Amino acid sequence: MTRTAQIKHALTTTREGDFAQWYQEIISEAEMAEESGVRGCMVIKPWGYGIWERIQKLMDAEIKAAGVENCYFPLFIPLSYFAKEAEHVEGFAKEMAVVTHHRLVSDGKGSLTPDPEAKLEEPLVVRPTSETVIGAAMARWVQSWRDLPLLTNQWANVVRWEMRTRMFLRTSEFLWQEGHTAHADRNDAMAETLRALEMYRAFAEGPLAMPVIAGEKPENERFPGAVATYSIEAMMQDGKALQAGTSHYLGTGFAEAAGIQYQNREGQQALCHTTSWGVSTRLIGGVIMTHGDDDGLRVPPQIAPQQIVILPMLRDDDGDAALLAYCEELRAALAKQLALGEPIRVLLDKRPGKATQKRWAWVKKGVPLILEIGGRDAAGGQVSVLRRDRLWRDDARPNFIAQARDAFIGQAAGELAAIQAALFDEARARRDANIVRGIDSMDALAKFYADDRRYPGWVELGWSRPTGEALEEVVTRLKALKLTIRNTPMRGEPVSGTCIFTGEPAVERIYVARAY
Amino acid sequence: MTRTAQIKHALTTTREGDFAQWYQEIISEAEMAEESGVRGCMVIKPWGYGIWERIQKLMDAEIKAAGVENCYFPLFIPLSYFAKEAEHVEGFAKEMAVVTHHRLVSDGKGSLTPDPEAKLEEPLVVRPTSETVIGAAMARWVQSWRDLPLLTNQWANVVRWEMRTRMFLRTSEFLWQEGHTAHADRNDAMAETLRALEMYRAFAEGPLAMPVIAGEKPENERFPGAVATYSIEAMMQDGKALQAGTSHYLGTGFAEAAGIQYQNREGQQALCHTTSWGVSTRLIGGVIMTHGDDDGLRVPPQIAPQQIVILPMLRDDDGDAALLAYCEELRAALAKQLALGEPIRVLLDKRPGKATQKRWAWVKKGVPLILEIGGRDAAGGQVSVLRRDRLWRDDARPNFIAQARDAFIGQAAGELAAIQAALFDEARARRDANIVRGIDSMDALAKFYADDRRYPGWVELGWSRPTGEALEEVVTRLKALKLTIRNTPMRGEPVSGTCIFTGEPAVERIYVARAY
Repeated sequence: MTRTAQIKHALTTTREGDFAQWYQEIISEAEMAEESGVRGCMVIKPWGYGIWERIQKLMDAEIKAAGVENCYFPLFIPLSYFAKEAEHVEGFAKEMAVVTHHRLVSDGKGSLTPDPEAKLEEPLVVRPTSETVIGAAMARWVQSWRDLPLLTNQWANVVRWEMRTRMFLRTSEFLWQEGHTAHADRNDAMAETLRALEMYRAFAEGPLAMPVIAGEKPENERFPGAVATYSIEAMMQDGKALQAGTSHYLGTGFAEAAGIQYQNREGQQALCHTTSWGVSTRLIGGVIMTHGDDDGLRVPPQIAPQQIVILPMLRDDDGDAALLAYCEELRAALAKQLALGEPIRVLLDKRPGKATQKRWAWVKKGVPLILEIGGRDAAGGQVSVLRRDRLWRDDARPNFIAQARDAFIGQAAGELAAIQAALFDEARARRDANIVRGIDSMDALAKFYADDRRYPGWVELGWSRPTGEALEEVVTRLKALKLTIRNTPMRGEPVSGTCIFTGEPAVERIYVARAY
Repeated sequence: MTRTAQIKHALTTTREGDFAQWYQEIISEAEMAEESGVRGCMVIKPWGYGIWERIQKLMDAEIKAAGVENCYFPLFIPLSYFAKEAEHVEGFAKEMAVVTHHRLVSDGKGSLTPDPEAKLEEPLVVRPTSETVIGAAMARWVQSWRDLPLLTNQWANVVRWEMRTRMFLRTSEFLWQEGHTAHADRNDAMAETLRALEMYRAFAEGPLAMPVIAGEKPENERFPGAVATYSIEAMMQDGKALQAGTSHYLGTGFAEAAGIQYQNREGQQALCHTTSWGVSTRLIGGVIMTHGDDDGLRVPPQIAPQQIVILPMLRDDDGDAALLAYCEELRAALAKQLALGEPIRVLLDKRPGKATQKRWAWVKKGVPLILEIGGRDAAGGQVSVLRRDRLWRDDARPNFIAQARDAFIGQAAGELAAIQAALFDEARARRDANIVRGIDSMDALAKFYADDRRYPGWVELGWSRPTGEALEEVVTRLKALKLTIRNTPMRGEPVSGTCIFTGEPAVERIYVARAY
């Protein structure tokens, strides 16, 4: 199209051109994060961290509303704790940071070295997740049925030594919340597992404007030691799936390993049923790959650190004072409005620099609304409004729309809500358009995912839910196509037909996709 | 006194009886924290963590209001980063957790062991503080005078291997905020150092209701590598000092080590002047030892996770429904009120259990106002109010005061503000009464701190501000009396007289005390 060709996008890499490079460029140009110099660890910069703070604030309110109480548990876990739950340690043993010394000494050559005199008797593992150490606490806290359910959560950093890292998606250290709960029986624990899953679904589709499919992971993708693992799965713009949150029903395995038991109403000792559930800074990677475009990030208003940025077009002359006064009044008026249930977050950007340069910096950061105010706007009681999700006019110019100041103030909340909804609708339409049904053989599946199809999306299949070795065989065949089973949707309609893997009657639906 | 003798306090240990034991008992009985089983690390339980969340929320708003932006930096710091700033590494080298391996393997005997194949080329230190790793980021971020000042902060966990730990006061892992800023020159950096100090003073004396003395630490107590270190010092009820927050002017030493330089307006390269400042979960220990009494904690309303708890006196009969409805209406009405600038945090405690038992649990937790509501109260439109800071009547009974429901709702905000003020006034009066002046010789000082004086408080002295070896000698002599120099107050009045250490004319005031 001629029109598109004329647009000079703010990023140098397009999604179509090189999706992975485009992702890195957004993170860099939107000043969200950067490599730290420490292997696999990133520095989260103010705009990226601001989005995480918004996620924390809104998610924390949901967690508290469910009666879950925040605690804080140790960063270090003694090695022996891990040995208790056999399957669990199998799943994690390969990728943990191990503290072996508690002191450094000079090596006599001007450098430092771990002090051999200060070797720990028992090495400590930097937590990759906290089931074991929280389980030990729960064993102390739970005595009677009256203590149940025990509902805890922590916001913390965790470390999983990753060989190949990608910012926000897979880093050695990341930030997350981990909910851990103990219950009297399976029903209650399963209800909590599914409550957390539904909380994540609603959160992804609400504040993050990111459509997801909530469902159960296949047996081979379960959390180490879990009886059942559920996930929300989101489709990125390259058609790949991102597991964006998980919730696990752990049965009584962890309770047995840690000794979490209670006296029931009949006076007998019984093991608790436990759950755990978490989302992490990975969500930010999902937001980028769901909403970013060739001009940078587009942040859904509910999680935008700033929802509106006001850029005064300063001229270093006598008119600047009046212009700034006008902008400050505008800022104050907007900050008094409620949008999406909270006061509007609006920034008057008075930093030195050219307004155009600053505009593009904010476009790349993805602030939902940008207001450019010149002397004439101020004099005429006007504002010039740029909606980040409608950036370009047909003539390939930025789509600024002049509005009367008071009219804009009155509409700002509605505009932000509209952007929130538009981003979700756009992502959902894309997701729905890229789920393919009706593939009826492994050959057809292989053909669908042949190399020339760049962003092929997901395939929805009916399958016979094989287990054990039969499942392993399916997993291997899919792996050859670089595919994985994402999940079985919670609200699956009844299926008919034959499983393309086993030839047996299909019993439920699954999604198959390439994944992050 | 007969009256006091009759009171049956909620704790078994009194402050007078065994202050250290009393401190542990409060932490346990108020369910704030407990030993984790991991050496030197504690589990922070919901009530303790709730207080930390309140501290974070209020402090974070102050930090943001000063234009400081939150970031997140890596947990791990390569060993080589530490070697760069010589004085700094000297100060910390003895007490750091060192990660040497990134994988575990089975040891063949059913246990796990660090995998010798996965030894890190360069060991990683778990951050004891982040000057070095943040300095490396600042070196990337700062290019020109336009980038200055650079104002960052992070909320994080840090680890300092401690031999003797005490919950909240000195733990191997603790939670804190650390501000790190870079400036064009000394004046600007010093202004930021003192801004942070003043922020801490106002925060301690405001939300924490904990009077402090803000001042400069003596040379021997400086942060490793700092040019000047400032602190806020609070007096605990046993007369000891608690350093409750520090702010450091770091000069250009860290900037030189990390390469933080900028092009100034004249086009020349110049080193930045940096600062750092922090407060930690130690503040919670300060709150306990400032406001706790023989019945448990008393939490200042501004940082209380719950400010009012409503206890319905349920009787497991037909009347309960009406009683609960009355309590719920009361809760909703209170939650709509603003106290101390925020909606009142009020909990209706419907858990099973005897009301009296629940009352004492909340007394020990230190919730500012407890309302007990029985069937007759509900019928008569009454509430029965217990103010935690006025717990006992003259006849040694709990000081419940019956009030009309609507009158109480109207007064609740004022009552909470009054408790906040009363706790501060009480602590300040005690602090002021326990600062002694006029001690004019080392002998007099030794006599004042002789063993039979249990809680001797602080001594204010004029001194000649010796440095180097002369200061070391003073420190040694004080150490023999188990004393340390706390700080030189910022707003010291002029001094006269002679320094009791050197015999030279006094030039400034200092506080000398035993300390945590």
